[in-house]
Amino acid sequence: MRQVRFRDPAGMVRTGEWHGDAVSFADETYGLDEVDVLPPCEPSKIVCIGLNYADHAEETGMDIPERPMLFLKPPNTVAAHGDTVTLPAGKEQVDWEAELGVVVGEQCRNVDAADAESVIAGYTVLCDISNRDDQRQEQNWVRGKAFDGGAPLGPVVADPEHLPDEASVSLRVNGETKQDSDISQLIFTVPELIEEISTYMTLEPGDVISTGTPSGVGGLEDGDEVEVEVEGVETLSFTVRQD
Amino acid sequence: MRQVRFRDPAGMVRTGEWHGDAVSFADETYGLDEVDVLPPCEPSKIVCIGLNYADHAEETGMDIPERPMLFLKPPNTVAAHGDTVTLPAGKEQVDWEAELGVVVGEQCRNVDAADAESVIAGYTVLCDISNRDDQRQEQNWVRGKAFDGGAPLGPVVADPEHLPDEASVSLRVNGETKQDSDISQLIFTVPELIEEISTYMTLEPGDVISTGTPSGVGGLEDGDEVEVEVEGVETLSFTVRQD
Repeated sequence: MRQVRFRDPAGMVRTGEWHGDAVSFADETYGLDEVDVLPPCEPSKIVCIGLNYADHAEETGMDIPERPMLFLKPPNTVAAHGDTVTLPAGKEQVDWEAELGVVVGEQCRNVDAADAESVIAGYTVLCDISNRDDQRQEQNWVRGKAFDGGAPLGPVVADPEHLPDEASVSLRVNGETKQDSDISQLIFTVPELIEEISTYMTLEPGDVISTGTPSGVGGLEDGDEVEVEVEGVETLSFTVRQD
Repeated sequence: MRQVRFRDPAGMVRTGEWHGDAVSFADETYGLDEVDVLPPCEPSKIVCIGLNYADHAEETGMDIPERPMLFLKPPNTVAAHGDTVTLPAGKEQVDWEAELGVVVGEQCRNVDAADAESVIAGYTVLCDISNRDDQRQEQNWVRGKAFDGGAPLGPVVADPEHLPDEASVSLRVNGETKQDSDISQLIFTVPELIEEISTYMTLEPGDVISTGTPSGVGGLEDGDEVEVEVEGVETLSFTVRQD
């Protein structure tokens, strides 16, 4: 099953099932034009991984890290499928980054990689929007990564069995493919990431681990329509506005 | 008034008033030994400032930043007055850092420094516990700053009028004074910080801005009893355990 959160025509927030062109809750089914799709979970934190695809590390000119490179996106970064994201004002370069997101299913700490599957609720799709103007100047990537709307997320949390071992991760801007790789290229695997992060931090239900982006990163422009697809999960769509 | 959150003898969470040796809610007053003091607010994010006292920048050997240096502590870092904080395992150097915390009172974005006072609920006391082993190696200070319990916080949110213009910020370990400065030494003022942060991020009620630490930073050891005092606010106490 693919779980979706949505606001129904009466204004109620429902956690229901995604059917591609419709959503349902209990006995009611709605077309996508009848509801507002909401972020599929409500993370207390998004823990992101930098440079986790060898091809992307190469394009940035940075060394492959010896252990996962971590950074944070707080709850203000969350945006939903179908949203229009206003980019930070006055920046020259704000990039897309297509990512597989792991949604945590239970409160956990100190999880061994061997047991990590038991704490995964499912998978989602995330775009790690990145303000390079500031990221290049900062010790910590706060202005660069933690701005409002910097993490469009969704539309679903897909049960783990939907994710193929070599699921493709791709991104299109105005219909043109910009990123196209697959998760077999991950330097640190999902269980390794969960072990490393949970050594330091308690993970909460709904928290998201965003697993890094492949090569093909580039700059967003006003009006761009972005689609991020993870094979077996879904396609996340959003629009960009640059004031 | 100084606001406190506590769990009363019946187990109910109350937001009441702090009286130093007692707390009250409605017509009931309890001794501190009758209640559990909770963190005084529930931040969706803590935005911290590095190197915001000239004397601390000097002791770290780092340049004074041209604009505020930001980093993040997510909700898993919060610990309460009276807690025992277990430090990250196997680290050589985990330091104390005494800080004045600003508690946000309303949802806001793009706040001018001139209007910043209107979005401040009050002030609290925070210890920015810092795992230097990892901080020195990381691009982003996640293992270094965002570990569980890394932000003891409280015990109160004091109304703004309680904070003197040159409020002292001090820290004692096992009764011995280690840090002793005052907020006139801040490089970036509280209104300047609110303007800068809210340019990028929506602030939520209960979010905390931690304004940086003065000189005198040093390493915590198993069993240390730490007191952090901000003049006019209160003294935050906690104990440290190093497994």
